[in-house]
Amino acid sequence: MRNLKMKIQYDGSKYKGWQRQKVGDLTIQYKIENVLSKMTGEDIKVIGCGRTDAGVHAENYIANFHTECELSTNSMLDYLYEFLPEDIVVKSMEEVGERFHARYNVKSKTYVYKINNNKFRNVFNRKYVYQTEEHINLSDMREAAEVLIGTHDFQSFTNLKSSTKPTVRTINYINISEVNGIIEVEINGDGFLLNMVRIIVGTLLEVGLGKLKSVDVKKILDEKKRLEYGPIAKAKGLCLKEALY
Amino acid sequence: MRNLKMKIQYDGSKYKGWQRQKVGDLTIQYKIENVLSKMTGEDIKVIGCGRTDAGVHAENYIANFHTECELSTNSMLDYLYEFLPEDIVVKSMEEVGERFHARYNVKSKTYVYKINNNKFRNVFNRKYVYQTEEHINLSDMREAAEVLIGTHDFQSFTNLKSSTKPTVRTINYINISEVNGIIEVEINGDGFLLNMVRIIVGTLLEVGLGKLKSVDVKKILDEKKRLEYGPIAKAKGLCLKEALY
Repeated sequence: MRNLKMKIQYDGSKYKGWQRQKVGDLTIQYKIENVLSKMTGEDIKVIGCGRTDAGVHAENYIANFHTECELSTNSMLDYLYEFLPEDIVVKSMEEVGERFHARYNVKSKTYVYKINNNKFRNVFNRKYVYQTEEHINLSDMREAAEVLIGTHDFQSFTNLKSSTKPTVRTINYINISEVNGIIEVEINGDGFLLNMVRIIVGTLLEVGLGKLKSVDVKKILDEKKRLEYGPIAKAKGLCLKEALY
Repeated sequence: MRNLKMKIQYDGSKYKGWQRQKVGDLTIQYKIENVLSKMTGEDIKVIGCGRTDAGVHAENYIANFHTECELSTNSMLDYLYEFLPEDIVVKSMEEVGERFHARYNVKSKTYVYKINNNKFRNVFNRKYVYQTEEHINLSDMREAAEVLIGTHDFQSFTNLKSSTKPTVRTINYINISEVNGIIEVEINGDGFLLNMVRIIVGTLLEVGLGKLKSVDVKKILDEKKRLEYGPIAKAKGLCLKEALY
């Protein structure tokens, strides 16, 4: 049985996220499983490095699948390129050991949230960038981001309903940069709870806009439950940049 | 009577080009005239710096219009931003002398044609870049481009039906560059005939692909009529970068 690791780029605009919910639905996982199953004649299950929310994009999403199919990886890539929709591309594929598991083995993931802080939207990236012309104070955002670095219980930063699952995660860094009015919030961590990246960005944006202070972010974190403040940032600005193993 | 000059960015993907053909049609000119007419209560006619083909984009398209409306240019920009579709943005507006005419006064225009020469498309710019993984020889393309620099009769490089209009134009430069597999063909000239930029790019691409040589391009130019070779490059890769006055 071969185990194949894929690197996938997708424009999540029209999808209900990575994870298949039922057969035939509009998810990236389903689209890829469907093409791989036709290609191999097998019932392929793809293991992804994590869920991404509806509308979230990926530059280098990692997934793997098992197959008896003997096609070369290059032939498989060509097949996928031909039959996947134009907003999903499997960029590369490689043989990995049988124990490789895209979700269990991931060490950390990096997400980038993009904000166009110029007066008007840019028509060419409008589907991948959140637009606001309100003044954003980056040094306040950076100070508040420091509060979240490290290992914490992130219950306050998830819309996860069940409280039975562990909610402790480690954020390794949050880099906030700005070039030509495009602000990028880059977050790397060992794992993220449901909506966690978007709630973190939404909360940091409230700080940047002067509606919250970094002490408030500390209070929210210590509260260990999801409160009213800290709105969820719009999905379209978020992109999974990479998954590290 | 005020004369107002606008700088416009648009994603031409779903439009039939700049120029209005009838009232209510899907052209950029019509969309802007419609919003300006509602804003002013006048029947606004917008003068553009030139036609762009269906599917062609613009980064800095220049246009002007006359009005008695006394709104500030900032208020007009806000109104346009609110009521234009999301793929058209008027980026700036300024008062100009009454004699300024966006089409008659333009000195030169610069177009950029983008080609993704990597194996697979990039989902995030797929609507703005022509995709081919075939090997393209850039130095051959540059040599052939030299043939076209200067003042020539460009009848061989237009789909213009009528031969009564003058077809002599001056191309000031053609720069061909490549970064990370994205090839950019930048063309500046004093004016371009119908489809001329796309036919030039299509012809240069044939040279890059080894199907034509620069001597063939010279022959095509000297022929002074539109021949079979030199296909028209796809519209979606083309963008009007700027218009100079």
